[in-house]
Amino acid sequence: MTVKNASILLAHGSSDPHWLAPFEQLLERIRTRLDNPQARAELAYMELAEPSLQSQVRSLADEGYGHIDVLPLFFAAGRHLRKDVPAMLDNLQRQLQQEGRDISITLHPPVGLEPEVADAISQVVVRQLQ
Amino acid sequence: MTVKNASILLAHGSSDPHWLAPFEQLLERIRTRLDNPQARAELAYMELAEPSLQSQVRSLADEGYGHIDVLPLFFAAGRHLRKDVPAMLDNLQRQLQQEGRDISITLHPPVGLEPEVADAISQVVVRQLQ
Repeated sequence: MTVKNASILLAHGSSDPHWLAPFEQLLERIRTRLDNPQARAELAYMELAEPSLQSQVRSLADEGYGHIDVLPLFFAAGRHLRKDVPAMLDNLQRQLQQEGRDISITLHPPVGLEPEVADAISQVVVRQLQ
Repeated sequence: MTVKNASILLAHGSSDPHWLAPFEQLLERIRTRLDNPQARAELAYMELAEPSLQSQVRSLADEGYGHIDVLPLFFAAGRHLRKDVPAMLDNLQRQLQQEGRDISITLHPPVGLEPEVADAISQVVVRQLQ
């Protein structure tokens, strides 16, 4: 049996709906670019907004996904990505295991300052400064 | 008399030094790309790290800069960029005015999801998903 994979784009979250909108647009942009029609990408927030990371993982587990890649839409890995999110995922995996569901989750490095992204940011900033 | 312009790249800030390092690398990348050797770009943090936005604006004012562009290294504008930072800048401008220093400050939209940046992020995510 092959394990079904899904991905969650993880953003920090905010109580301000103005903050959330661009992430939803980004998810749409990513979905239209995925060649593989089977590829599943969802959005989740670490705090202050829904869907939470926990509820998104649970609903993908309910749909039968056995592996989840979490891609943080953060600029850098601070306390949140080095402590809070791993602890959140550990707890969640333990709970799911107790419920008899085995799911593996990989937390990836933040995408916010990958070379291409850092490059695009410096282009935007240099343009604004000149 | 021409007004000297400087720019501040504003990041959220974190008490975690691991979080700060990539922003310093980004600043270096931007500085090496600036054609104009007069262009001045500095980094500041909204909270939890130094230099703070206030101290960076003050030190540029001390050096004789009369206009400061603040470019937020944020993905989106939530409460911080729509309320906290404008309030911070208003207070600071008022204080500086009371000290007899007139400085204009422009807060720009977040650079984090400008089209080029959103594009680079979706490229990185799509590559990781495929």
